[in-house]
Amino acid sequence: MPKPVIALAIGDPAGISPELTAKVLALDEVREAARVVVVGDRRIFDDGARIARTTAAPDEFVEIRHADAAGIKRGVAAKAGGESAQANYRHALRMVVDGKADAVCFTPFNKQAMRMAEPTYDDEILFTSNAIGFKGLATEFNVLEGLWNARVTSHIPLKEVSSHLSEEKIVAALEITAAALRAAGFNPPRIGVAALNPHAGDGGNFGREEIDIIEPAVKKAKGKGLPADGPYPADTVFVRAKAGQFDAVLTMYHDQGQIAMKLLGFDRGVTLLGGYPFPICTPAHGTAYDIAGKGVANVGAARAALLLAAKIVRT
Amino acid sequence: MPKPVIALAIGDPAGISPELTAKVLALDEVREAARVVVVGDRRIFDDGARIARTTAAPDEFVEIRHADAAGIKRGVAAKAGGESAQANYRHALRMVVDGKADAVCFTPFNKQAMRMAEPTYDDEILFTSNAIGFKGLATEFNVLEGLWNARVTSHIPLKEVSSHLSEEKIVAALEITAAALRAAGFNPPRIGVAALNPHAGDGGNFGREEIDIIEPAVKKAKGKGLPADGPYPADTVFVRAKAGQFDAVLTMYHDQGQIAMKLLGFDRGVTLLGGYPFPICTPAHGTAYDIAGKGVANVGAARAALLLAAKIVRT
Repeated sequence: MPKPVIALAIGDPAGISPELTAKVLALDEVREAARVVVVGDRRIFDDGARIARTTAAPDEFVEIRHADAAGIKRGVAAKAGGESAQANYRHALRMVVDGKADAVCFTPFNKQAMRMAEPTYDDEILFTSNAIGFKGLATEFNVLEGLWNARVTSHIPLKEVSSHLSEEKIVAALEITAAALRAAGFNPPRIGVAALNPHAGDGGNFGREEIDIIEPAVKKAKGKGLPADGPYPADTVFVRAKAGQFDAVLTMYHDQGQIAMKLLGFDRGVTLLGGYPFPICTPAHGTAYDIAGKGVANVGAARAALLLAAKIVRT
Repeated sequence: MPKPVIALAIGDPAGISPELTAKVLALDEVREAARVVVVGDRRIFDDGARIARTTAAPDEFVEIRHADAAGIKRGVAAKAGGESAQANYRHALRMVVDGKADAVCFTPFNKQAMRMAEPTYDDEILFTSNAIGFKGLATEFNVLEGLWNARVTSHIPLKEVSSHLSEEKIVAALEITAAALRAAGFNPPRIGVAALNPHAGDGGNFGREEIDIIEPAVKKAKGKGLPADGPYPADTVFVRAKAGQFDAVLTMYHDQGQIAMKLLGFDRGVTLLGGYPFPICTPAHGTAYDIAGKGVANVGAARAALLLAAKIVRT
């Protein structure tokens, strides 16, 4: 069986992404797991390799020359940086669509630079779906070692969360989460579902969404053979997951999962864009402008991102 | 300086409270820090001491004989148990009001039993304020080792949180939190304030409460000399606090703090009822009916509760 081919797009050039790109492909473990094709501007990559003090060459390099590469200033969000990251990422996605790669990874983007390059830029999901013309449901998974987090709502005001919840959305989120877990080798996966209200609503005393929406959704999902369990109070579901009772927690809103995942060390984790016909993985942390160019960036999350993508392709 | 006198009320008799009461007052560290007056039914205490395998006698015992003591079944929430816990706790509070004690501690209550005994029972704050005729603002602090959590809203539906927030309430919460921290010896205390929306609203893109309510409240609090800082995204404020940047985090809603505190091990922590003229402390965990009577209950949180109460009295 040939190695999975991963198109690794260089992210924002002003932060730690170039040095991380060079550093991660120098790891024996990564080179054994996948054939890595780096997509980006060679000058930016070489600068990253110099900072990371590595001479390891990628298995293949696809040059996306960027007009302004020389003018990018370290630690400063710029339109040129956002354009470079977007061009690299678009090309990496295109490689999979064209059958030249099996998965995409990218080193971190800078949201500010992405918006400078493309004012309508919202998040990676929207950008990716547009770039490959994907019309289905895609979602972001946060993966920290064996623990996954998926969410039903994300970047919306907290007061609007309740009105965005529905039985259909929760069942759909459970379906996509179960499928992604199975694709990553969890068989059968175990998904804990978080409640919305304090004490899971305390039998309706502090809110009725558990009774009216979440419980019926879990019941319906179970009826479809999905491995869902809950709803559990949000302040205990991650304690259970941490103790090994669940492989994934489905949360109702952004911070419900992020508070827990970040405390558990999610900066070492991976963001997986799920729902697409191929895996897309990136380190969970950001561009870390404050330490860019110093060669001290921790490669752990980037390593985990490449290994997860390779594992999903193999499974 | 004489030792602080702590009135220690025996909580729900069907769970681990009797054995914890006996166990905690047998600790040298506790006996050195305070003079402990146990308030409860002697038969229930003696049974707890037998289970805990300790013969240590309290410095003083105030007998509140309960008619049904013999009929209480271990591991079963009952009206008689709730009545017993309430009578003990009321008496302990009365002792401080009457100048016979400096602080109150209680071993865990069972909410179900409390409601059987008193159908309007809501939580300890309401019960306590009614019991001593306190009209001021009281609030619950969760204390885990050096880290405190206070909240602006608590047992309400998540969708109502936004409409319950106001500049005045946040400033009042910061005042009471700063006062409680100072009373516990933090001088000056450092309080991190959590945002409400994901990414602290992302500059208004995902909600405006940060801009319209929380930022002005923090500014006003700072103007009053209060040690407030923020608002910080909820998923990073506890990471900062864990790293030692804050002594306390003020959260906008129940689960925002509880998700973090429980992951950090809050079952070992202490709930402090603050805002009253004297400290009231209890272990953060519950009555643990499943292990009641086995003598295996961990005394750590009860120990921390008595030591915190004694410390506040001394400060």
